[in-house]
Amino acid sequence: MTEMKFVYLFEEGQADKKALLGGKGANLAEMTNIGLPVPPGLTLTTDTCNAYFKAGKVFPQGMEKQLWEKLADVEKKIGKTFGDVNDPLLVSVRSGAPISMPGMMDTILNLGLNDETVKGLISATDNPRFSLDSYRRFIQMFGDVVMGVEHGKFEEALEKQKKAQGAKEDKDLNADSLRALIDEYKQIVTREAGEDFPVEPRLQLLKAIEAVFASWFSPRAAVYRQINKIPEDLGTAVNVQCMVFGNMGDDSGTGVAFTRNPSTGENVLYGEYLMNAQGEDVVAGIRTPQPIAMLEKDSPAVFGQFVNVCSTLEKHYRDVQDIEFTIQNQKLFVLQTRSGKRTAQAGINIAVDMVGEGLITKEEALLRVAPADLEQVLHRQVDPSVKFDVLATGLPASPGAASGHIVFDADTAQARGNDGDKVILVRTETTPDDIHGIVMAQGILTSRGGMTSHAAVVARGMGKCCVCGCDALDIDLNAKTITVGSTVLRENDLISLDGSTGRVIPGQVPLIDPELSEAFRTFLGWADEVRSLGVYANADTPEDAAKALEMGATGIGLCRTEHMFMQQERLPIVQKMILAGTLEQRQEALDQLLPFQEDDFYGILKAMDGREVTIRLLDPPLHEFLPDMESLVVEVTTLKLTNGDKGKLEELEALLRKVRALHEANPMLGTRGCRVGVQYPEIYRMQARAIFQAAARLKKEGFDPKPQVEIPLVIDPGELTLLRGAIEEEAKLVAGKAGIALECLVGVMLELPRACLMAKELAKHSDFMTFGTNDLTQTALGFSRDDAEGKFLTHYLDHKIFAENPFAVLDLSGVGELMDIAVSRGRSEKTGLSFGICGEHGGDPESVHFCHKVNLSFVSCSPFRVPVARLAAAQAALESK
Amino acid sequence: MTEMKFVYLFEEGQADKKALLGGKGANLAEMTNIGLPVPPGLTLTTDTCNAYFKAGKVFPQGMEKQLWEKLADVEKKIGKTFGDVNDPLLVSVRSGAPISMPGMMDTILNLGLNDETVKGLISATDNPRFSLDSYRRFIQMFGDVVMGVEHGKFEEALEKQKKAQGAKEDKDLNADSLRALIDEYKQIVTREAGEDFPVEPRLQLLKAIEAVFASWFSPRAAVYRQINKIPEDLGTAVNVQCMVFGNMGDDSGTGVAFTRNPSTGENVLYGEYLMNAQGEDVVAGIRTPQPIAMLEKDSPAVFGQFVNVCSTLEKHYRDVQDIEFTIQNQKLFVLQTRSGKRTAQAGINIAVDMVGEGLITKEEALLRVAPADLEQVLHRQVDPSVKFDVLATGLPASPGAASGHIVFDADTAQARGNDGDKVILVRTETTPDDIHGIVMAQGILTSRGGMTSHAAVVARGMGKCCVCGCDALDIDLNAKTITVGSTVLRENDLISLDGSTGRVIPGQVPLIDPELSEAFRTFLGWADEVRSLGVYANADTPEDAAKALEMGATGIGLCRTEHMFMQQERLPIVQKMILAGTLEQRQEALDQLLPFQEDDFYGILKAMDGREVTIRLLDPPLHEFLPDMESLVVEVTTLKLTNGDKGKLEELEALLRKVRALHEANPMLGTRGCRVGVQYPEIYRMQARAIFQAAARLKKEGFDPKPQVEIPLVIDPGELTLLRGAIEEEAKLVAGKAGIALECLVGVMLELPRACLMAKELAKHSDFMTFGTNDLTQTALGFSRDDAEGKFLTHYLDHKIFAENPFAVLDLSGVGELMDIAVSRGRSEKTGLSFGICGEHGGDPESVHFCHKVNLSFVSCSPFRVPVARLAAAQAALESK
Repeated sequence: MTEMKFVYLFEEGQADKKALLGGKGANLAEMTNIGLPVPPGLTLTTDTCNAYFKAGKVFPQGMEKQLWEKLADVEKKIGKTFGDVNDPLLVSVRSGAPISMPGMMDTILNLGLNDETVKGLISATDNPRFSLDSYRRFIQMFGDVVMGVEHGKFEEALEKQKKAQGAKEDKDLNADSLRALIDEYKQIVTREAGEDFPVEPRLQLLKAIEAVFASWFSPRAAVYRQINKIPEDLGTAVNVQCMVFGNMGDDSGTGVAFTRNPSTGENVLYGEYLMNAQGEDVVAGIRTPQPIAMLEKDSPAVFGQFVNVCSTLEKHYRDVQDIEFTIQNQKLFVLQTRSGKRTAQAGINIAVDMVGEGLITKEEALLRVAPADLEQVLHRQVDPSVKFDVLATGLPASPGAASGHIVFDADTAQARGNDGDKVILVRTETTPDDIHGIVMAQGILTSRGGMTSHAAVVARGMGKCCVCGCDALDIDLNAKTITVGSTVLRENDLISLDGSTGRVIPGQVPLIDPELSEAFRTFLGWADEVRSLGVYANADTPEDAAKALEMGATGIGLCRTEHMFMQQERLPIVQKMILAGTLEQRQEALDQLLPFQEDDFYGILKAMDGREVTIRLLDPPLHEFLPDMESLVVEVTTLKLTNGDKGKLEELEALLRKVRALHEANPMLGTRGCRVGVQYPEIYRMQARAIFQAAARLKKEGFDPKPQVEIPLVIDPGELTLLRGAIEEEAKLVAGKAGIALECLVGVMLELPRACLMAKELAKHSDFMTFGTNDLTQTALGFSRDDAEGKFLTHYLDHKIFAENPFAVLDLSGVGELMDIAVSRGRSEKTGLSFGICGEHGGDPESVHFCHKVNLSFVSCSPFRVPVARLAAAQAALESK
Repeated sequence: MTEMKFVYLFEEGQADKKALLGGKGANLAEMTNIGLPVPPGLTLTTDTCNAYFKAGKVFPQGMEKQLWEKLADVEKKIGKTFGDVNDPLLVSVRSGAPISMPGMMDTILNLGLNDETVKGLISATDNPRFSLDSYRRFIQMFGDVVMGVEHGKFEEALEKQKKAQGAKEDKDLNADSLRALIDEYKQIVTREAGEDFPVEPRLQLLKAIEAVFASWFSPRAAVYRQINKIPEDLGTAVNVQCMVFGNMGDDSGTGVAFTRNPSTGENVLYGEYLMNAQGEDVVAGIRTPQPIAMLEKDSPAVFGQFVNVCSTLEKHYRDVQDIEFTIQNQKLFVLQTRSGKRTAQAGINIAVDMVGEGLITKEEALLRVAPADLEQVLHRQVDPSVKFDVLATGLPASPGAASGHIVFDADTAQARGNDGDKVILVRTETTPDDIHGIVMAQGILTSRGGMTSHAAVVARGMGKCCVCGCDALDIDLNAKTITVGSTVLRENDLISLDGSTGRVIPGQVPLIDPELSEAFRTFLGWADEVRSLGVYANADTPEDAAKALEMGATGIGLCRTEHMFMQQERLPIVQKMILAGTLEQRQEALDQLLPFQEDDFYGILKAMDGREVTIRLLDPPLHEFLPDMESLVVEVTTLKLTNGDKGKLEELEALLRKVRALHEANPMLGTRGCRVGVQYPEIYRMQARAIFQAAARLKKEGFDPKPQVEIPLVIDPGELTLLRGAIEEEAKLVAGKAGIALECLVGVMLELPRACLMAKELAKHSDFMTFGTNDLTQTALGFSRDDAEGKFLTHYLDHKIFAENPFAVLDLSGVGELMDIAVSRGRSEKTGLSFGICGEHGGDPESVHFCHKVNLSFVSCSPFRVPVARLAAAQAALESK
């Protein structure tokens, strides 16, 4: 049996050995091997860590021997010897797990110093203050991390010493003060730890290694692993590296830089540095660092080295690098490199540039940008560089940001909006009656209602910023105030909303505008070349449709007709229809609605000329179009007690009776969707007629309308044959009257488990199918969205029962399984049957991946998420290759 | 090619040729062949009917030839000739489809008469009145059925003639009047049909056959076939049979009899007869028929023949027969026999007797009784022999019947019930506050709420009669009146309910008591020998458990704990727990509930000693234990407007805030089931502790308690591990304290689609599983039961989208499919894992069949349905052999 290899010199490792050497160790090895100026060093493997714990916290047999042998190699390289009393080799000891756990684990610098070797350092550097300060820092760090001495004890002594010496900053302490401090530090260690500070450098090193291993099981690391689902048996590697010093004088320094601008993507070095300083000085912010460009003037030779390093690293890693470096006596050392974090806009620009430069392929470029980040580019944003107070946080119901004057009712919002005033409409919750105000407001804020509340749905449809269900706000519509604790906002006060995070901000915050750059278009063009999944949009109006086209949608996957019913001038007719006592009365109201609906469909079909438009027939329960029961009860009770207007009372009582008759215990599972159509076929007939009349008009005008009539909430072929028959009759009637051929395509929305299970039987009568995964999630999981989000779902996420909100990211075990079943059963009846998904999951990247996997024909989402879906679909196609 | 055989003599057919000869024809053939006195005749096959229509309403080639040949055979047999002017053979022509369609199709009697042959009949019978009346009836029947003359025209002429002759009844018309009437009838035919009445008997016969064929496509037959899903291409056979006459004098007669008493099952002939009469005279009820026993005195020889016929038929068909017979001049003829319809009690007694007599096997006996009929035997019933008015019909929420005095509130019900008074509790709807009244009432009547409303669920649990959602009733709780149209019932008026049909009856109706006969026990004992499926009961109290045992349940499949929370003395504590602001306050209330719960479980586990008791932890949303929001709004509004008690107002407003905070848009899909347990683990811990403390007490007393703790509304293994952990901890704590070993079995209720799909993963952490098919139906189909029944579901049943209410009979395509998936996935993880079903489907015979098919371990249903399930399970086992 050959002995296990516990210790690797940097030059023995490489980038793809992260599991064995840790992320940091693997990267240091890679940089060493491509000839970059990395201070030499060695890495103890993660296996060593695991063996150490397995053996009951004992170093595995042979490890120490390997360590000293490899350390000798390092000594040879650097030309110094560990523990040399004339010119000692000092090392840093750092952890490095396979998966980055920033700040979670420990580091020790300047290891190898003691009362003897510090003298050697002084003579070698001719810098007593630097040397003694390094020794002091080492005792402090080692005492804290390895020996468990409370950090504060050292800080106290330091402060006392500074006071005694009248020193303002650490660096103002002279050599004598530092010597005194070092003595005091050693006493503190002996007193607090119960043992003396170890003198022997090799003992120091072994103890430091043990301490780094131990930090893998520190409570904060354990919690971090639990949260991020990092397995405990990965273990950590330990890197032992020769120290270099940026604080050795004015020809030394330290800095951090990106190879390109991470904010804009511009191909120029971006970063800052500080001469005669160590990393922690830059972080502390006591001295102001210089922009990296200044280095060219300060030290052209070093800058030249750095430019070369950057170029080498970017070419080697084929991505923007975020580099930490130190200059020691004019010599550049690279201490770390990693992929540079960047904004969405920068990410796109960099990816496109790098393809242009031949550095990466289009496919690689597409995999470089997180689809969700694209949303940042598409909405107005709160300027991330500005600080502000947050009044309260509600649900992030519709992304984007807005500022404006507070108004408390829709009429005022409309009037002031018409006057060009920017207003935010604040309501406890919105109703169809508020639509005209919502249209004219910059953003919507409500204290009640969830992510599918009226306000949220309408706002998302309009791409308008909305914060919902912000129940920390006490909104008094009569007094026209918003109260949170002692803060009171009044009508006309300025307020800002961040619909992407749910933040409500008092006053006005600076917003930044979206910009669809050329690079953005190029980039998404590549995505379209690669993806096999179609990307459609949800759109209810011609304006939505235009936006959808602009965002790159190639069809409408869901056109909801109920929002058309809710428009201000139509709602009274809709209510008349609902309250109708006879079929004749109902038909009369429907006849009034027909021309409105026809115009709606005409506009959308025209905007989408030549592209499919999936039109869903009326879906919500009829009581959604009537006033709320609770407020009616209050009105009726009040009129009774105050002996109010008898006629009015009777009218309201009649209305209340109807509202009560239509009231449902669980409206989500009640008379809605095609159940309304089964009960009142005349409603669906009117809608079908409107669709076909619009199509006929457009055909005569030379357009190519492609309506697809969709029946919602289907669970049985019986519903489908009944309603399909009625729709086909209407198509024939309209075609006959117009003397024109009209195609009649009818499909179903699969949004209930039974429908998915019966997809084969339903496919016999369907020309297409789309999944309504919002309702499917509600029923498959038994989750009422309105009653789950912000309520029990919070506990489910807290307890990690769910990793994600299933309304945002498709639940694969339940909903995904049903979709998979439906697709295979549906296509077993009709090969190639079109399956789409509409609703918010259609714009979620993870869900889009699943849709690609189960071979859907298209995803459909709100226009603003179309670019997200296009990219996610492309990535899914690339990853499944 | 041999010619097709269109015509069969009766002696050429047999009972198993129903598809070809129709039900009637096959039975006539069978009886002929076993030597019974059946008037000879022939049958035209259903194929003939189909060939006739296929050829465009033309008799198929060769049919007529066969008909006359076979008719000649019949003539030979009877010794008369068709169309003979001296002694003509007369025939009846009747339809006979393969599947009985009672009253749907046409019949013609006395065919073969004309002006000449009637003379022959007169001379042969020496009875002019009889002969002429037969002729008159023939013209009328033929004119109506074959020639399409409106029935009323003949009736008018008849009435006119009777008036002219001063005749009170038809039979008072003398021969001359009949001759005149015959002339007039013929004129009517000529005038109305536009052609003369056919004279030639053969032509009459051919036309009659065509008319019977045509009746297969009559609108009423088509509708009947559609409703009963009878295929159209079955066609009908036509039976041509020699006429026999029960009205030929005092030695003739007609009657109907059962071979055993169909009401009690007693093995004595049961029926009635009338001498000198035809079948229609018996039906018309003008003369009172004699009991069949009288025939022995009237005509011992004929009675002897009849007893022999009955015995032969019963032995041949091995079942009770319902026989139509005619006596013509002392000679008995059998015209029809079929299985006798019987009451449930009679069915059981007959089946048991016949096994005793060696006539049928136990297995055959078990297949003879419809399981659903057993319910009749188990509840008090409205005496079916009594006539009464029905005030209104509501939902048949809980079977059985009750009469009592109307009371409008629970306190009065309790007080008067305690006094031994029989009362019916009438409410618009019931709440947990009404429990004490429900307990003491004979029955419950509500105007609102569906089959799962509080009243319905509680009443079913108690086996108490209940009619729900009877919205025709205008109930005024203040005025204490029930108004329906002009009828007003007041407190203390008598009222009766039939919970099996939903009928509400003013006044008191006679009820009959259930009787569990020895035969019933024997019969169900056989069922238990045969079935492989376990039958458990749902029971929430020791009383329920005792009833369950009495009904033959061998375990409790569902013990709901929420009803325990709703009891009068506990509800205030439960409300305190819900309104608690801190964990401490909540724990304090739970500590108060613990002893109550422990006693509950102690009682049930003791009653079920040695048998499994599945205890479901708290399931409903917490707001169900709080007052209703709408009434609180009214109270608050009233107090505000009337400047009422400030303290009370504040208290109510606080309560209203909590109710509003807990209010849910879709409570069915909200914070209920284990979601309450995840949010408030202390509630589930208290329940678990109560269960194990009860078990520990019983063990010490020498009992063998078998509790199984069930977690409701599970969708994810994460919920299960969390809650199972807590339950196991409680079990350990209790066991440790008691110094006793306690088994801790924990299972899940599968009531959401995702749970079924994830059964494999859930099985890893489950000791058993049961299906909650009520909720599974609600979510798989997206049907809120409260909002479906009596609402859109009505349209679905009307349109035949659903054949059955899916809450009564398992929906196999959706819910059944999910169950099937769950069983196979669950058992793929744990072989032999126990699966049960609880809820109403567990007592529905059709659903029990399915449960047997998918290999469930047991069904569980309300105690009163246990016998139904036992029999259904036995039948399923027999049928799957």
